[in-house]
Amino acid sequence: MVLTPYKQLEAEWKRLNAFRGALALLRWDAAVMMPRGSADIRGEQLAALETEYHAVLTSPKVSRLLDRAQASVGALDDWETANLREMRRQRDHAIATPVALITRLARATARAEGQWLEARARGRFEVFAPHFEEVLNLVRDKAVMLGQALNLAPYEALADAYSPGIASADIEALLKAYARRLPTLVRDAIAQQEARPVLPISGRFSHGKQRALITDVLKAVGFPFDRGRLDESAHAFTEGVPGDVRITTRIDTADPFIGLLGALHEAGNAMYDLGLPPKWLDQPVGQDRGMALEESQSLLLEMVVGRSRPFVRFLRPLLEKHFGVSGPEWDEENLYRRLTRVSRSPVRVDADELTYPLHVMLRFDLEKRLLAGQLAVRHLPEAWNEGMESRLGIRPANDVEGVLQDIHWALGSFACFPWYAVGAAIAAQLGEGLRRDVPALDEQIAAGDFTGLFGWLRQHVHGYGAKLNAQDLMRQATGRPIGAQSALRYLEAKYLEQPPAASAAA
Amino acid sequence: MVLTPYKQLEAEWKRLNAFRGALALLRWDAAVMMPRGSADIRGEQLAALETEYHAVLTSPKVSRLLDRAQASVGALDDWETANLREMRRQRDHAIATPVALITRLARATARAEGQWLEARARGRFEVFAPHFEEVLNLVRDKAVMLGQALNLAPYEALADAYSPGIASADIEALLKAYARRLPTLVRDAIAQQEARPVLPISGRFSHGKQRALITDVLKAVGFPFDRGRLDESAHAFTEGVPGDVRITTRIDTADPFIGLLGALHEAGNAMYDLGLPPKWLDQPVGQDRGMALEESQSLLLEMVVGRSRPFVRFLRPLLEKHFGVSGPEWDEENLYRRLTRVSRSPVRVDADELTYPLHVMLRFDLEKRLLAGQLAVRHLPEAWNEGMESRLGIRPANDVEGVLQDIHWALGSFACFPWYAVGAAIAAQLGEGLRRDVPALDEQIAAGDFTGLFGWLRQHVHGYGAKLNAQDLMRQATGRPIGAQSALRYLEAKYLEQPPAASAAA
Repeated sequence: MVLTPYKQLEAEWKRLNAFRGALALLRWDAAVMMPRGSADIRGEQLAALETEYHAVLTSPKVSRLLDRAQASVGALDDWETANLREMRRQRDHAIATPVALITRLARATARAEGQWLEARARGRFEVFAPHFEEVLNLVRDKAVMLGQALNLAPYEALADAYSPGIASADIEALLKAYARRLPTLVRDAIAQQEARPVLPISGRFSHGKQRALITDVLKAVGFPFDRGRLDESAHAFTEGVPGDVRITTRIDTADPFIGLLGALHEAGNAMYDLGLPPKWLDQPVGQDRGMALEESQSLLLEMVVGRSRPFVRFLRPLLEKHFGVSGPEWDEENLYRRLTRVSRSPVRVDADELTYPLHVMLRFDLEKRLLAGQLAVRHLPEAWNEGMESRLGIRPANDVEGVLQDIHWALGSFACFPWYAVGAAIAAQLGEGLRRDVPALDEQIAAGDFTGLFGWLRQHVHGYGAKLNAQDLMRQATGRPIGAQSALRYLEAKYLEQPPAASAAA
Repeated sequence: MVLTPYKQLEAEWKRLNAFRGALALLRWDAAVMMPRGSADIRGEQLAALETEYHAVLTSPKVSRLLDRAQASVGALDDWETANLREMRRQRDHAIATPVALITRLARATARAEGQWLEARARGRFEVFAPHFEEVLNLVRDKAVMLGQALNLAPYEALADAYSPGIASADIEALLKAYARRLPTLVRDAIAQQEARPVLPISGRFSHGKQRALITDVLKAVGFPFDRGRLDESAHAFTEGVPGDVRITTRIDTADPFIGLLGALHEAGNAMYDLGLPPKWLDQPVGQDRGMALEESQSLLLEMVVGRSRPFVRFLRPLLEKHFGVSGPEWDEENLYRRLTRVSRSPVRVDADELTYPLHVMLRFDLEKRLLAGQLAVRHLPEAWNEGMESRLGIRPANDVEGVLQDIHWALGSFACFPWYAVGAAIAAQLGEGLRRDVPALDEQIAAGDFTGLFGWLRQHVHGYGAKLNAQDLMRQATGRPIGAQSALRYLEAKYLEQPPAASAAA
């Protein structure tokens, strides 16, 4: 029997998916298990598999099949049609950038990464500047080519690779709404917090005990340990494919919340992967709907759920069980205050959910101007410091805690930061939808029951995979496109909260 | 610049080597780290990479390049010439078996594996027999095709895939020499042992403490933990590529020697991989010289070194350090007796080094007759039991500890068992060479210094990779081709030993 062009494409992507899974394992192992002297060998393996992956995706055979399948698209059902669209999208992205440019960019970013480390060690941006300029020029070329191929503006084309279907006008509108409200909200929240001090915790919390606690929490959340793993690594991340999803977290023996919240963040992402439509797991339409949605799932679990009073109620007895701790500093109210503390930090990765979007805005503004040629690399440190002062009211003490703090640009990752803020907005918006449809959500979470939460997310988000674009998905799930209203309502309610009766007397 | 055909082949094999490394990692992870529900997904990943590997190896392009390179072989140096020969060998093996037969064999062995488990559970060979017959027929077809392509007899062709360059006449001669001497040697050794009882050990030896002990021993041996790992798994194995070699062992908390000796066995193999010629690691000539040599390195470290008095002298203080043990049962003499106990077991994997070759002989004899059509599957259990009785003097109580004990044949692995016995002979022969050239070997090992041992092995074995065939390698290293003399001398000296003065009074 001869397969239709569409069915032949499904077979090609099934194979690509197997390669994708193998690549994921090679990366996971490199970060978690690999002996430190084996990096070069692993680099060769990754390059060989990536080259093969790219070769299949951009092959004349696949292009021919895509054209033939498109010609008889009327015979496909809506999932197949969406799958074909996503296949084409992946191919278009892969084919738009010439291999020679990819190679030059890989070399330039490898050099820039080294010089970024050197510049940080010496505290001198000038060491990094010429190498960053080279990366920037290549990324600009790439953005133009990608834009021509995808019929998008250059920045938009880069963004499309991360989160298709969310225009940069949408991002801009969202960040503007944040910009109008956040600075005063941050000021008022900090003022209010000063009246409610946090009792410090002390002690040493062993890796083993923290892992046992995190495992208990993840089991309650529904993370399936027969199709996933939890490990430790230098930075928390999620890797793998649905059916073998691996999360990691970084454990600090002085602070038991870093590892736990990091694991929750990754578990949000993992639960998304695990909830993708089972029938389509080896096809593009069965994949997640991009970085903004992924980040929303992480932030929903870490921030909206994980740093809430009901979750603290669920958590407190587990802390006692695993660490044997008690006393006023381990009371629910004190734990909640600790988990929702707001402070102005110059460093993004130390930021809380209230100040985080301000860090994103700065980067979004600067990277657009850099790409458009409106901001020269030599003026970047000053633009950074000024932007930080105007948005967050603080000035970095030096470039290491200023413009040199993130590695993303050195690696050529532009149009990547906005999704952290867009994801936070989506999380808040989904949170409102959840509260509307699952009235008992708080009681469930306080009782360690996450089935209401994930039942709703599966039905409204996870189960669609990449079938809908992100805006249509959100309209369908929440009645509105992505916007800042829910997020601002959520942040105001949380950070300008009237003290609850129980602790008003404290 | 245009590359020569030979240099183009090197580039193809560099890529194949990257795939080989990725496949090794996928297998290692499946046995050590993978969540148990992810087996199907891993199966798809392995199949996709293996298919690609096979496609490159059997591509018209590679065949054309092999022919062109052969035509100007005079321009190559001796390493390159050997490399080209090994490239051709790998291609010849890959191309000789049609993909359709490989697929049928994969399906038949998957069924046979399941029925082998079922037959063991029910204690009935008949459950397994028809499925085994199907596998046998397909293996016979494969052997014939492989033989025609390689210009070898069918059994020889299968053997060539494991250990090229050792003819089955060589194996036969070796096993015959064993057969003449071993039965009486086993009888005399057991009689002598009866006069020297072993004091039993007791206690529980935790995984953590055993791993710490094994790590100490492996560090002394020279296993590089920055280019390799030690983990636990259901069966000990070595996986990976030079530069990232991973060994595992099975730890039994009631017996601290199972995990340690298993790790030493694998470390012997790993040290071989790590000693391969650095310049040629991504090429065929830089690989090990087949299963007999690999097994010899494992047995040299586990049996010849690991179960020797000097090694026990090195080990005893480490046992005290890690387990806090002392007393007569932990004395050197008692430990040595324990590690060199001989007994007649019907089960190969429980066998000591003295009875092990008898188990191999039985299988070698039976599998040749099965393949030649001289023994029908339905007569196999009886032939097994008779062979066991005539060689080892014991009769299995049932088929589970008889003909159903090994999974190898069910998986289509024929001509695989002999190498365990050949490897033991090589180990003993290399052991004699070592004693000749490194007179202080015993003192070094007793002091935990393994540099003399591995210095010699690197110079005479590891550093050659696959440049020489196994027989030439052994002639060069020891002055003689592979034979049984050294092994019999070694076994006689060890198992008919006169009691040392210190313990004669015991």
